[in-house]
Amino acid sequence: MSGNTFGRVFRLTTYGESHGPGLGGVIDGCPAGIELDESVLQAELDKRKPGQGLASTTRKESDQAVIISGVFEGKTTGTPIAFYVANQDQRSRDYTSVQDIYRPGHGDLTYDAKYGFRDYRGGGRSSGRETLSRVAGGAVAQEFLRSKGVEVRAYTVELGSLAADISDPAGAQDRPFFAPDPAIIPAWEERVKEVKSQGNSIGGIVQVEALGVPAGLGEPVFDKLDAVLAHALMSVGAVKAVEIGAGFDAARSLGSENNDAIIAGGEGKDFVFGSNHAGGILAGISSGQAIVARAAVKPIPSIAHEQQTVNRAGESTLLKMGGRHDVSAIPRIVPVLKAMMLLALADAWLLQERQSLV
Amino acid sequence: MSGNTFGRVFRLTTYGESHGPGLGGVIDGCPAGIELDESVLQAELDKRKPGQGLASTTRKESDQAVIISGVFEGKTTGTPIAFYVANQDQRSRDYTSVQDIYRPGHGDLTYDAKYGFRDYRGGGRSSGRETLSRVAGGAVAQEFLRSKGVEVRAYTVELGSLAADISDPAGAQDRPFFAPDPAIIPAWEERVKEVKSQGNSIGGIVQVEALGVPAGLGEPVFDKLDAVLAHALMSVGAVKAVEIGAGFDAARSLGSENNDAIIAGGEGKDFVFGSNHAGGILAGISSGQAIVARAAVKPIPSIAHEQQTVNRAGESTLLKMGGRHDVSAIPRIVPVLKAMMLLALADAWLLQERQSLV
Amino acid sequence: MSGNTFGRVFRLTTYGESHGPGLGGVIDGCPAGIELDESVLQAELDKRKPGQGLASTTRKESDQAVIISGVFEGKTTGTPIAFYVANQDQRSRDYTSVQDIYRPGHGDLTYDAKYGFRDYRGGGRSSGRETLSRVAGGAVAQEFLRSKGVEVRAYTVELGSLAADISDPAGAQDRPFFAPDPAIIPAWEERVKEVKSQGNSIGGIVQVEALGVPAGLGEPVFDKLDAVLAHALMSVGAVKAVEIGAGFDAARSLGSENNDAIIAGGEGKDFVFGSNHAGGILAGISSGQAIVARAAVKPIPSIAHEQQTVNRAGESTLLKMGGRHDVSAIPRIVPVLKAMMLLALADAWLLQERQSLV
Amino acid sequence: MSGNTFGRVFRLTTYGESHGPGLGGVIDGCPAGIELDESVLQAELDKRKPGQGLASTTRKESDQAVIISGVFEGKTTGTPIAFYVANQDQRSRDYTSVQDIYRPGHGDLTYDAKYGFRDYRGGGRSSGRETLSRVAGGAVAQEFLRSKGVEVRAYTVELGSLAADISDPAGAQDRPFFAPDPAIIPAWEERVKEVKSQGNSIGGIVQVEALGVPAGLGEPVFDKLDAVLAHALMSVGAVKAVEIGAGFDAARSLGSENNDAIIAGGEGKDFVFGSNHAGGILAGISSGQAIVARAAVKPIPSIAHEQQTVNRAGESTLLKMGGRHDVSAIPRIVPVLKAMMLLALADAWLLQERQSLV
Repeated sequence: MSGNTFGRVFRLTTYGESHGPGLGGVIDGCPAGIELDESVLQAELDKRKPGQGLASTTRKESDQAVIISGVFEGKTTGTPIAFYVANQDQRSRDYTSVQDIYRPGHGDLTYDAKYGFRDYRGGGRSSGRETLSRVAGGAVAQEFLRSKGVEVRAYTVELGSLAADISDPAGAQDRPFFAPDPAIIPAWEERVKEVKSQGNSIGGIVQVEALGVPAGLGEPVFDKLDAVLAHALMSVGAVKAVEIGAGFDAARSLGSENNDAIIAGGEGKDFVFGSNHAGGILAGISSGQAIVARAAVKPIPSIAHEQQTVNRAGESTLLKMGGRHDVSAIPRIVPVLKAMMLLALADAWLLQERQSLV
Repeated sequence: MSGNTFGRVFRLTTYGESHGPGLGGVIDGCPAGIELDESVLQAELDKRKPGQGLASTTRKESDQAVIISGVFEGKTTGTPIAFYVANQDQRSRDYTSVQDIYRPGHGDLTYDAKYGFRDYRGGGRSSGRETLSRVAGGAVAQEFLRSKGVEVRAYTVELGSLAADISDPAGAQDRPFFAPDPAIIPAWEERVKEVKSQGNSIGGIVQVEALGVPAGLGEPVFDKLDAVLAHALMSVGAVKAVEIGAGFDAARSLGSENNDAIIAGGEGKDFVFGSNHAGGILAGISSGQAIVARAAVKPIPSIAHEQQTVNRAGESTLLKMGGRHDVSAIPRIVPVLKAMMLLALADAWLLQERQSLV
Repeated sequence: MSGNTFGRVFRLTTYGESHGPGLGGVIDGCPAGIELDESVLQAELDKRKPGQGLASTTRKESDQAVIISGVFEGKTTGTPIAFYVANQDQRSRDYTSVQDIYRPGHGDLTYDAKYGFRDYRGGGRSSGRETLSRVAGGAVAQEFLRSKGVEVRAYTVELGSLAADISDPAGAQDRPFFAPDPAIIPAWEERVKEVKSQGNSIGGIVQVEALGVPAGLGEPVFDKLDAVLAHALMSVGAVKAVEIGAGFDAARSLGSENNDAIIAGGEGKDFVFGSNHAGGILAGISSGQAIVARAAVKPIPSIAHEQQTVNRAGESTLLKMGGRHDVSAIPRIVPVLKAMMLLALADAWLLQERQSLV
Repeated sequence: MSGNTFGRVFRLTTYGESHGPGLGGVIDGCPAGIELDESVLQAELDKRKPGQGLASTTRKESDQAVIISGVFEGKTTGTPIAFYVANQDQRSRDYTSVQDIYRPGHGDLTYDAKYGFRDYRGGGRSSGRETLSRVAGGAVAQEFLRSKGVEVRAYTVELGSLAADISDPAGAQDRPFFAPDPAIIPAWEERVKEVKSQGNSIGGIVQVEALGVPAGLGEPVFDKLDAVLAHALMSVGAVKAVEIGAGFDAARSLGSENNDAIIAGGEGKDFVFGSNHAGGILAGISSGQAIVARAAVKPIPSIAHEQQTVNRAGESTLLKMGGRHDVSAIPRIVPVLKAMMLLALADAWLLQERQSLV
């Protein structure tokens, strides 16, 4: 019972390695009748391409999504939606020099420990290319959620310890780094150049928000909406922490500061909230406010510094990685984290439907 | 498909409300042959009792666990282990005054939104008493994991913004507040008294660690060990953030700082690590280092301040809660978070067993 | 990942052994707002009592169901519904003589093989008393389904090779043996007396039907409604075969005979069917016709004949069972099979209510 | 939560329609280290080709399986195994005439009822081509089980009411109709010719057996091995009944006849059985005997007779199907049923390898 499926009603199962023929996924449980074609998947995949900001490499990747099943005459049919993205460049590089060395910060040694051996070509299944299937799957979830009035957006709030102003993130989707404030972009570009010149890497923080989520989503007690979101976001490689709403700040607040007041009235609504420290979730169930989560992204472990490590035989060795590595998982991880919230919410929506006769 | 079951192989299903006859759980998938009796559950439940530190109320609670099935002649049989804890005090208090008011920071309004109505007596299913079943279930997981050489411990690292020294947490289990350093206890007591006198509440941070976990646990790509731990810890009410290893600090480090060097040798081991920023997990799989996670706990929302809120009819009202409320979920949440890591690891262990023929 | 949970959305988890403190179950996923009290469970449990026909023993059993959680002010709340039935008679009989002997036709040797040892008191978990929890769970499913206009009924179509006329089964619920035709009762009574006097046992065939099921339930391709029903019915001890609709007769028919013609009109309906060889299921999805299934029940293996067997040491031994054993699992198995169809249909209903936007 | 995944640890998820680009599947949870290449899948797929006996059409199909992921240097890696089979012939036939007509015995009306509309080209997802993915998945399960000493075989025991002698089925895999006795083949050929000339169709009965299964597989109480096998076999389109061991005959036997005696000794074994009415399963757990199941296969509903039916508008119409239809699902269904037992047993094996410390 491996872990390549996400969701319980809206379920995405993914497969594929970085240097095999391709990657893909199967979505089971998507309602019938949703308009869908390959351009929907492609639009999201294109956001994950290298070159969306200087932090990523300039390697050419052109990932073309194909839909194999589950769509007929432009609409989902209720049967499994399978999609596929062929790997463009599978030429047999020589991996002999690294196949027995455990790269620090990578999964080389843990994959070996788990399975007894591993596909050492470019990380195999543990490669970041795996996230391609998440983004394609998330694109389908997005179509479903949009039909319900829900919109999810994600943007970078911090890169290399430089924080952006997030007071007006609306245009972030179209900016380099998915920056919520255009003013931060030059500083981030500078930081990236500097780190790159040092052969080093940096991390950052990404915020993901869902607008238009009605009250009632989330399944107490173990599958609270925040628990499932934490699971979803933390499942993305490089993420080391997840906050909901005020997160760690809540741990340092008084109750009187952290509680969100509930205010009667508000145009046509029964109530509004005085603040959103809860991140839109109370007792594990959505409250009708915006869902707000943040993910801490570690620096990419592949650096051009000499690092101490061992080989499979347990012998000491020094490793210095060459090649054109990304300086940061940001910005390419941003659409991936967005996709995970989309998948989590689509599933929560379908779980909630019809749980009450009242 | 509600969310009252945790785990895939070692599965805990819980039930019960704060003011019904009692609470309990069923563990399905616990291996046969583990020594178990009620004292094992009781020992963990007693750590969750009020009065383990001044932050908790002085209410008397004496929760006695009974095992109903799955144990024969002192050993688990492989069939479901059911346990039960009767509620001591079910006398019919008058809840009329609060049944229609949505307490800020509580799940009153979200439960109503989800199910159409709710059990308003003391929070019903959303009450903290629900965690009793987690602790009892975790106690069984602990017996299984101890038979494999794994030990989990949890302690408070911060309370009301006052951080403890965590360099030697070994004795924390037996101290007030589960304090990792006895020197912090007076300061925490002082802080609790002060906040209590103000009718307010505070949060804090809890660290949970597992020692003796072998490399290989965790199921890529969606059920990475860190993702499942985040899910487990965030599913506990009041938790608003989860970090693994360096957590948010990783997001602000350089790759050269954050990577854990792998060092050959080390008595009888193939290698050791130069640091543990990864928190014992690489690419979602345990690396053989200690598993380290932290949870941010929000202040308890029940405070003796006047708060603005609404009733079910959407009318504005002011609420001031009386009664003897805890000042903080800490320390009582500490054994609950420990239980969640125990449950997550027992499940990960059984998932991993026999996935490789090599 | 043991097998003590049935269903995916409407989920029943059961526990308990024949000679422990009691048996029970937890239903997770039952919608909120359904009227429910203990009398609903009791009414079904009473149908499973001994003495519903001469085939059962005259032992006194009075199984009283208690609801522990999930119901508030007479309605389900959407949280887990836990119920419990205490074992009346747990006095410590002497099982020394049989604890090491493998009874032919029982699970003694397979439980030992699976778990390494077993609870040998009266079968432990493999005892027929386990079905009590299915019946109680089915009673809750029945309330949900009745609110949707679905009615399930079950009756005996054959006992000891004597077949009943099933042309008018409406009154079967209230007759001995759940007989669909009162005229068969004397013959069945005679057959039971005869077999009992010989210290032997007999099997039979039970039919279970659901009326009022709309078209659309069932999840292709692996969880077709017929597949799930076969799973549900075959999971009851003693069942050795399951047919849907024409069953084995279909295998011996021509296509022209077996196809059910679809006939336009029919009072207010788009169509009716000329026959129901399909048993109400086409391509794994309910068609709107009555769902019809049959289960073959083997004779009870506990007989007063001398039987050749072995003990745990592998030594040959002869076993002759005394005690007051039932002559047949019929009629007590009839409400159990009904309960399994109720559980399967409640789950199928909630699975379907999530699948189409059209 | 649709039903396109089978299994809990060894999980097969399938997708694809008869007239889309292709069909495929993803196996998650297959242990690492099993030798596997495409020829393994192809060998089983070839047994499912038309022309394996006169009952099938003479259409040319050449289904070539491609492995996309999960295999590296000839061995499974523990990551998802994805396979794909392109549809050869997707030319756009004109389906206008049948797209609004509900074919009797087919899923046309139930798919419409469930999803609101359907892919009407050749049955879409409800087409028998779907079973291709089962056979490919079963081929992988077979490699795993063979590494454990388990062998599964399937053969036709009855076709068009003509029963074969099954006393020596060893050579059936290589004979027309998967006939267990070559002597029956001429009679079956004659029957098929006759029925074909009448534009009609016939059903039959298939037996599936597993040899070398150790005692201990199967998960009481709801996921007994017989329950899971019934689910697996009944999930194949056209199957209307499943028997385990003596099946319906058990319902008509006395306990003294149906019990399988347990006999001490037997070369190096603790015991052997005097018969196998139980079909190798006691109390839902394998006993060490051969697992024996039978499936009743209905006649193919596509016949060249005029049949009464309705269209989507509910209007009466007569339908007479042309085209080269198979006369029977037998023999092509035989490798499909074998695959389902393989999948069920591989899963049961991995579920069991986690349950006892003894």
